[in-house]
Amino acid sequence: MRYIGLQEVEDISLGAAVMASGGGGNPYLGTLIAKECVNTYGPIQLLTLDEIPDDWKIAVSMGLGAPSVLVEKVPNGREAGWAMEVLEHAVGHGFDAVMASEAGGWNSLHPMLPAAERHLPLIDADGMGRAFPQLDMETWSVAGLSCNPIGVADERGNKLCVYSHTNKMGEDICRSATVAMGGNISTACYHMTGRFAKDHSVWGTYTLCETVGRIIRLGRAGELDTYAELQKTLRFKELFRGKIQDVERRTEGGFTRGLCQLEGFEDYEGSSMEVRFQNEYLVASVNGQVKCVTPDLIVMFDTESFYPITSEQLKYGCRALVVGVPCAQQWRTPEGLAVVGPELGFGYPDIAYAPVEELNA
Amino acid sequence: MRYIGLQEVEDISLGAAVMASGGGGNPYLGTLIAKECVNTYGPIQLLTLDEIPDDWKIAVSMGLGAPSVLVEKVPNGREAGWAMEVLEHAVGHGFDAVMASEAGGWNSLHPMLPAAERHLPLIDADGMGRAFPQLDMETWSVAGLSCNPIGVADERGNKLCVYSHTNKMGEDICRSATVAMGGNISTACYHMTGRFAKDHSVWGTYTLCETVGRIIRLGRAGELDTYAELQKTLRFKELFRGKIQDVERRTEGGFTRGLCQLEGFEDYEGSSMEVRFQNEYLVASVNGQVKCVTPDLIVMFDTESFYPITSEQLKYGCRALVVGVPCAQQWRTPEGLAVVGPELGFGYPDIAYAPVEELNA
Repeated sequence: MRYIGLQEVEDISLGAAVMASGGGGNPYLGTLIAKECVNTYGPIQLLTLDEIPDDWKIAVSMGLGAPSVLVEKVPNGREAGWAMEVLEHAVGHGFDAVMASEAGGWNSLHPMLPAAERHLPLIDADGMGRAFPQLDMETWSVAGLSCNPIGVADERGNKLCVYSHTNKMGEDICRSATVAMGGNISTACYHMTGRFAKDHSVWGTYTLCETVGRIIRLGRAGELDTYAELQKTLRFKELFRGKIQDVERRTEGGFTRGLCQLEGFEDYEGSSMEVRFQNEYLVASVNGQVKCVTPDLIVMFDTESFYPITSEQLKYGCRALVVGVPCAQQWRTPEGLAVVGPELGFGYPDIAYAPVEELNA
Repeated sequence: MRYIGLQEVEDISLGAAVMASGGGGNPYLGTLIAKECVNTYGPIQLLTLDEIPDDWKIAVSMGLGAPSVLVEKVPNGREAGWAMEVLEHAVGHGFDAVMASEAGGWNSLHPMLPAAERHLPLIDADGMGRAFPQLDMETWSVAGLSCNPIGVADERGNKLCVYSHTNKMGEDICRSATVAMGGNISTACYHMTGRFAKDHSVWGTYTLCETVGRIIRLGRAGELDTYAELQKTLRFKELFRGKIQDVERRTEGGFTRGLCQLEGFEDYEGSSMEVRFQNEYLVASVNGQVKCVTPDLIVMFDTESFYPITSEQLKYGCRALVVGVPCAQQWRTPEGLAVVGPELGFGYPDIAYAPVEELNA
């Protein structure tokens, strides 16, 4: 057990933006809101899965919507707690701990709000080990857990409770309701026991995010070799170094979708890279050859600062180091790939999954 | 107290399609489902508002969506009961009676399903005295009642419970959720006491619908003069007789919207009529002069059969008698007109409301 204070919030936020693989929402607002929470309610307890009893009741707290919208339609910090209230009312009991849905700029911080407000511990785990664009893309879902009931709230106090006949339908209904609710919402869902969380979550996500964030922070202060330390921590494969030449981006159906093209420099002079995204980066190809594909993580770092570049921030002239990071083992099973693989998860019929280590052997 | 049996279902369905002012959903499917309900559970008790205690708990049962979709995405008859279950769970108690939201082909029959299933009485009243396209356009809403919580269900068993910060926002969220739920849904909402129902409902809607339906049925059998009897019952003003020349119709944002043009015959030879609709007929003009406008009812009858022509059924060559019917008194107040009048309710800035009796004096 340890505590998340102001420095930890900053490191987690930065590291989560790396692990978000280009998505996960805007970390800036989340950081401000989470720090305000720590200032108001005190540091937040963080427990490892090992430390919690099997019979604990756990709820997952997450935001949903297009990251593009989040930047302009600012959360008020209360909606995450309101969504939790809806879930508590629906299941008829409170919870012992709160868990994150994914590693993402906004969604790693989102669960801190209801945790702080309720003085509940946060669990050092999540259901993705990265970010994915849909509520049904969770390791818990692959393991057969229903996401229902889903508590939903927006910043004006509109609330929904959703009971969907499949997790994908839960995603569709929430996504569709966000349109009337202004493009992004808070949810509380996937309520589960401590036992289930231990068996089917990705362990240690907050600690990993914090480590990554701390490396980048200390690297900027000249205290360590950022590239080497990140390599050790993430076991990434370097895919490309280049300058962004073109970005196509559109907000449709509650997602930010698009395509980014880069031209190589240094060792990659004369080569070009194409990265496709739907909130998150999904497929990275160099000279037409696939180099990293979902569910493995594609991360773009600014070559100077090592700050991650999210799909929101892509713009002409950015100089990027692009790396591929092996995903959590749960995603590399046939059941996992059916949900988040390139063909069945994201509709790229011509792209088969292969581990990033093999594609860059 | 009396009972609704198979003949009453047919008469109510036909009369409600008249009172729906062109909207209210397809009556054919509703009739089949309501008759099946009567066959399964027995006749449905119908109580006047006079007959119910002030402390009774009443729920309103209604469908929501584009009538165009309802014709193709057939309800299974269970969703109305499921929506009621969501509402019962949310408020923590059952109900003593069920009430209709509006007079409409589908929405007059919709409440019969949960009433029959639960052996609850139906109340001879509604919140419109006609049909309107939105969930917030109810006399109860004008009187300050919240529509929340709103129980929602679709034919696949997806369920929502909505708590909106305004009734209009409740409409927007449900309408937006219908997109993921296939275009139409069942809801249960506006829970109220017997006292509130007596003070703020439109009384006797089922009896009026049944009377209108019976007149048309007996008229077709040659047993009475349909025009004269309908005139006596509805106190309508004849606006036009003509042939439909053109229909523009589109399904957008969960509504069926459009414009219908007619060329006059008999006394109206040489004149033309234009009728604008959003599910319901909203504005009828003859030679550019407004003759009837929402909230007064615009009804089109087939000149041969006296069957009402809904906005769904409008097509080139139909021969129609168009009449205007005075609306319930609640709508003629400034508060009522703010919700369902032409300017504030439906965005026709150039059209001011005037009672159909004055426009056709």
